Amino acid sequence: MDPALGVLGEFGLIGRIRARVGRRSSGMRLGIGDDAAILEAPPGHEVLVTTDMLLEDVHFKRSWGCLRELGRKSLAVNVSDIAAMGGSPHYAFLGLGLPFQGVTLAEVDAILAGLEDEAGSAGVTLAGGDTCGSRSGLVLSVTLVGSVPVGHAIRRSGARPGDGIWVTGSLGGSSAGLLALERGLRPQAAWPAELDRPSWLGPADEAALREGVAAHLTPTPRLAVGQALRGCATSMIDLSDGLASDIGHVCAESGVGAHVQADLVPLHPGARVAARWTGRNVLDLALRGGEDYELLFTCPADPCPRLAVAAPGLRVTRIGEVADALPVPVLEWADGRSEVLAGGFDHLRGAT
Amino acid sequence: MDPALGVLGEFGLIGRIRARVGRRSSGMRLGIGDDAAILEAPPGHEVLVTTDMLLEDVHFKRSWGCLRELGRKSLAVNVSDIAAMGGSPHYAFLGLGLPFQGVTLAEVDAILAGLEDEAGSAGVTLAGGDTCGSRSGLVLSVTLVGSVPVGHAIRRSGARPGDGIWVTGSLGGSSAGLLALERGLRPQAAWPAELDRPSWLGPADEAALREGVAAHLTPTPRLAVGQALRGCATSMIDLSDGLASDIGHVCAESGVGAHVQADLVPLHPGARVAARWTGRNVLDLALRGGEDYELLFTCPADPCPRLAVAAPGLRVTRIGEVADALPVPVLEWADGRSEVLAGGFDHLRGAT
Repeated sequence: MDPALGVLGEFGLIGRIRARVGRRSSGMRLGIGDDAAILEAPPGHEVLVTTDMLLEDVHFKRSWGCLRELGRKSLAVNVSDIAAMGGSPHYAFLGLGLPFQGVTLAEVDAILAGLEDEAGSAGVTLAGGDTCGSRSGLVLSVTLVGSVPVGHAIRRSGARPGDGIWVTGSLGGSSAGLLALERGLRPQAAWPAELDRPSWLGPADEAALREGVAAHLTPTPRLAVGQALRGCATSMIDLSDGLASDIGHVCAESGVGAHVQADLVPLHPGARVAARWTGRNVLDLALRGGEDYELLFTCPADPCPRLAVAAPGLRVTRIGEVADALPVPVLEWADGRSEVLAGGFDHLRGAT
Repeated sequence: MDPALGVLGEFGLIGRIRARVGRRSSGMRLGIGDDAAILEAPPGHEVLVTTDMLLEDVHFKRSWGCLRELGRKSLAVNVSDIAAMGGSPHYAFLGLGLPFQGVTLAEVDAILAGLEDEAGSAGVTLAGGDTCGSRSGLVLSVTLVGSVPVGHAIRRSGARPGDGIWVTGSLGGSSAGLLALERGLRPQAAWPAELDRPSWLGPADEAALREGVAAHLTPTPRLAVGQALRGCATSMIDLSDGLASDIGHVCAESGVGAHVQADLVPLHPGARVAARWTGRNVLDLALRGGEDYELLFTCPADPCPRLAVAAPGLRVTRIGEVADALPVPVLEWADGRSEVLAGGFDHLRGAT
């Protein structure tokens, strides 16, 4: 343990966090420093709660040296879940397990600064948590409390046959970024001397890969999109495990099928580069790579006019249609081939 | 990974959990199976949120073989926090990190069964969570959402000079149980042949130690006591890190001092046995051992009449008085000696 952390101790660290967090939510009666936080639900709203854990060597490697990004991501992936309900995030709770070996106070400060970065963007207040030593890796477990006007949450279960299937942004960027990180590329550092660089990989390709790295390390939750789709989208989910897996949840919960057109899936430019570099299939990266944190939703109408206002400049793509069929998604090609759309990331099996 | 867990996969496991959890809270609009749970705060109530993490080899050892107890405890320690606010617990969220090596589906089922045991006792519904593989040991991170009538939460900050300082139950039992577990004693198993047994340690002593083991593995949150103290206690905290540390939080938050009479601290019978067995000081086990999950509260009146109704048979002891002094607690002996009361468990320093 960093001597500075030992001197500070658990309660010193909690005091340090308490002194630094911004207060952004008017309904907080009591935040850090008691047995529980006291919150007031906004009148006319229901409470939303979601939780996501990031574990060392499963979700990230400490050797990447990106702890500010990690702190940011630990909250962003939860904000993405609240976005996928059409809600607003308010209060975050951080469970922080700090390895007795090798984590410094400066690194803890970086994690907290990143979390505060995202909290500032999303209008969230860190309202509590639990800090303890860890005999294994670094553990970040964030729970996020939000709200949505009563009856207006957008669930996974509302998709109806004939609805269009839409996706925000482009897919496969995060997966491309992970491949680049695993090969040694780092943000804010030149291409490593020890890393083979294919002759075809030009500056634009490198820039696309680096966009993928940024997408992986600091995903952007689509909060404004989620809220703008209330009263319009019939179902919604955020793409954390990969479209192939996540659309299956919508089909299962809604009791519908889905036809997805392979040619319409929006591909991240970094995914094209990473696919060529690593010999992977680019569509596979986009459908099964996971962690893009874009929103997938179904909608009977064209959502573009309202999204042009809520998220100007953000690409939104119709990739298929909800079907009155067995509750499984089908991937279709222009030449008439089709296959059941499955796979994606399963934490107990790995990528399948 | 147990092949049965691999076959089930992450989403199969989530489905298995979803099928098994009891629904005990009328305000739940949507539970497991979407991006977030949707909850309704009871009218006239504020929302309470608390989170606590249990990490392998820090909070427990898998080799103890007590996974049902562990599941129960992961929720109980959070229920204890809600109790310490005078609130009612409603919805739990479980972050579960499963080591790729050595955890079986039967063990996961045991953890979930234990969590459901406690959920049943406390009237809690498991409403969501996050399941993932872990390279960092078994991780259980539970967040609990509860409620309390508006303005009636009992904070750490309300203690006033002259208030009596009270504690429920007896102290040091959990610490005694931990010492016994570390030496090899196991619940539901005879005294191990390889474990030296002092000649003085009779059946009643062993029974007291085993009560300590039970107190450590499956603490009993004092929910009825916490609720009964609304409108009576001026401050309250649950004893998780040890009285020496926890009373310091009350003093700091309330801006008061405290006089604690050493002779009045209620000692768990198992703590007396463990102290003699291990050469530790029994008062030190009671004050600094931690994890008793009894309630410490301050009160201008005698709380016993109302607690006799709310928790019949439970011992409640006046151990001292809040003082108009520097905001630190002082431990006093009958012979006039006194010392600043400090120490207890600090997760970044260990026991101090």
